Amino acid sequence: MSILVVGSIALDSVETPFGTAEEALGGAAVYFSYAASFFNRVRLVGVIGEDFPEEHLRLLEGRNIDLAGLERGHGNTFRWKGRYDYDLNEAHTLDTQLNVFETFAPKIPDSFKDSDFVFLANIQPGLQLQVAEQATSPRIIACDTMNFWIEGAYDQLRETLKSVDILIINDAEARELAREPSLVKAARQILEWGPTTLVVKRGEFGVLMFHGSSVFSAPAYPLEDVFDPTGAGDTFAGGFMGYLSTQEEINETAIRQAIIFGSTLASFNVEDFSLNRMKTLEMQDILDRFAEFKLLSHFEEIAS
Amino acid sequence: MSILVVGSIALDSVETPFGTAEEALGGAAVYFSYAASFFNRVRLVGVIGEDFPEEHLRLLEGRNIDLAGLERGHGNTFRWKGRYDYDLNEAHTLDTQLNVFETFAPKIPDSFKDSDFVFLANIQPGLQLQVAEQATSPRIIACDTMNFWIEGAYDQLRETLKSVDILIINDAEARELAREPSLVKAARQILEWGPTTLVVKRGEFGVLMFHGSSVFSAPAYPLEDVFDPTGAGDTFAGGFMGYLSTQEEINETAIRQAIIFGSTLASFNVEDFSLNRMKTLEMQDILDRFAEFKLLSHFEEIAS
Repeated sequence: MSILVVGSIALDSVETPFGTAEEALGGAAVYFSYAASFFNRVRLVGVIGEDFPEEHLRLLEGRNIDLAGLERGHGNTFRWKGRYDYDLNEAHTLDTQLNVFETFAPKIPDSFKDSDFVFLANIQPGLQLQVAEQATSPRIIACDTMNFWIEGAYDQLRETLKSVDILIINDAEARELAREPSLVKAARQILEWGPTTLVVKRGEFGVLMFHGSSVFSAPAYPLEDVFDPTGAGDTFAGGFMGYLSTQEEINETAIRQAIIFGSTLASFNVEDFSLNRMKTLEMQDILDRFAEFKLLSHFEEIAS
Repeated sequence: MSILVVGSIALDSVETPFGTAEEALGGAAVYFSYAASFFNRVRLVGVIGEDFPEEHLRLLEGRNIDLAGLERGHGNTFRWKGRYDYDLNEAHTLDTQLNVFETFAPKIPDSFKDSDFVFLANIQPGLQLQVAEQATSPRIIACDTMNFWIEGAYDQLRETLKSVDILIINDAEARELAREPSLVKAARQILEWGPTTLVVKRGEFGVLMFHGSSVFSAPAYPLEDVFDPTGAGDTFAGGFMGYLSTQEEINETAIRQAIIFGSTLASFNVEDFSLNRMKTLEMQDILDRFAEFKLLSHFEEIAS
C-alpha cells in the first residue's frame, strides 16, 4: 500500500506572537508527506525551484518519502510570507510569490499510478481531477480546497468532487461551498455531490465528520499555546490518510480513529515552527497523545 | 436533596432569522429551574413585577418548583429585548428594562437555607456572596457571571469566587476574567482563585471542563438550525446541577456526565422560543439524546 500526494512545496516566512521563521520548509505536500510517513510510504508529486535547499530533500528522503515525482522548475521555489496575531486561527498573508508553482502541472510517474491512497492537496480543481483520473486502482481519493477555488472555479470543483471519496476542508469553506450558513445542512448538501465522507476542520474547536447519517465530533487537544498554526490542516490530513492506509477495511471505526491520529499529528505540529516538532517525534509520542484524546473526550454511559 | 437558584426572572422579546417572540417567559433563574426540575426539586429566589402573568407561576409550580422565595415588587417585571442574526452565537441587545430587578436583594427563606446544591445565576457578585453565605450546609455552590461584573466589580467577583466550587462561564468571560488570551492558561489561573472546577461554555463548539490537571471536552449536539439561543447557558447549568444533585458522590465521572446532561437540555431548549421545547420534553427524550452524545464523540482505542 502506498500514499500519493500532490500539492505545494514552499519556503515559508512566518511571524507569530512567539517568534519568527525565515524561509523555512513548508507547503501542503510537505506537511502532509511528513505526517503520513509515520504510518506508510509516501509518494510526493510537486515542484521546487533551482534555489531549493538540498537539506530539505535529504530530510524527506530520510523519511522514506519517494521523490520520483518531484520536478525542478526554472526559477525560484514558491514562497509564502504570513503573520498570525493572538487569534491564531487566522493567517494574514503578507506576501505570496508563486514562482515555479504558478505553472505547476503535476506529472504522475508511472511508478506512482498504482497508489491506493491519493491526497489532492489544495491546487486548481482541474489539476486535481487530472491526477485523480491517473490513479489506476485507488481505494480512497481525498482532497482539500480553498475559498479561492470555491469562488473562482466552482463548476470545475463540483466536477472534481464527483471523483472524491473524502473531502477535508474547514468550516467556512464547507458553508461557502454549499452556500448554506448551517454547517449540518451544508454537510448534507456536499455529501450529495460525490464524497461519502466530509471532514470539517475547526481549528481550536476540533473536527466534525459527516458520513451517511452519522456525525462524529472530535475534540482539539487543549494546548497552552499554539506556537505556529502553519501547516496544521495538511499535517492533519497526513496523519489521517497515513493511518487509514494501514487499515484493511475503511469503515467508520477506522475513519474516526484516523481523525484522532490526524488531530494528534496536527497538535504536535503547531507546537513549533515549520516541521521542527515533527522532526523529533516518535511513534510512541503519537500513541500516547492518542490515548490522551481518549481521556479528554470520555464520559460514562448512564446505567438504564 | 434540593437545589437553590437565585437569579433573574424576565419577559423576553426576541427576534431571530426564524421568527419572533413577544414578552415570553425567560430569565436565568427560570431556564435553570425548569431544566433542573427534570432531576430534582428546585427552590427559586427571584423578583417579579405586578404585571407578571399568573400562567407562568402555574407553569413553574406544576414542575414542583418551590416559589416561597419569589418576591413580588412594586412596578413591572424585568424585560429584555434582543435580536440574533444568522450568527446565532451573538445576542444583540435592543432594549433592557431592569424595572423591579434593578434593586433586587435576594431574601432566602429559612426553609431554603438547608439546600445542598446552590446556583448563583448572573447577578451582582456581592449579592451572590451573600446568598452563598446563607446556605448552612452546601455540598456544591456553582455560579455564573458576565463581562459587566468582570469589568465593573472585579475585586468583589474575586472575593465571591473563594466561596464557589464550580464556575460556569463562556470562553470570552474566562479569558477576560484571567486577563489571559490562552484559554488553557486562563483556566489554570482561575482554578487558583477558589473554584475546583471550571466549566467553559463555547456555544456551537461544546463545553470544556477543567478540574485539577484534567480536561474534558464535550461536543455540542449538531443541530440543523439553532432556532433561539436565549437561555441556553442557564438551561445547561440547570441540567448540569440537576443531574449532579442526584449523585451520591460528586467526582469527575459525575461532573462529566452532568456536562452531557446540561448540553442535552440546552440542545433541546434552542430548538424553539422561550421554554417551549422543554415544556413538551420527557425524561426519555433526555436519555435518548444523552446516548446520541455518546455516539457522537465515541472512537475506539488502539490495540497496543
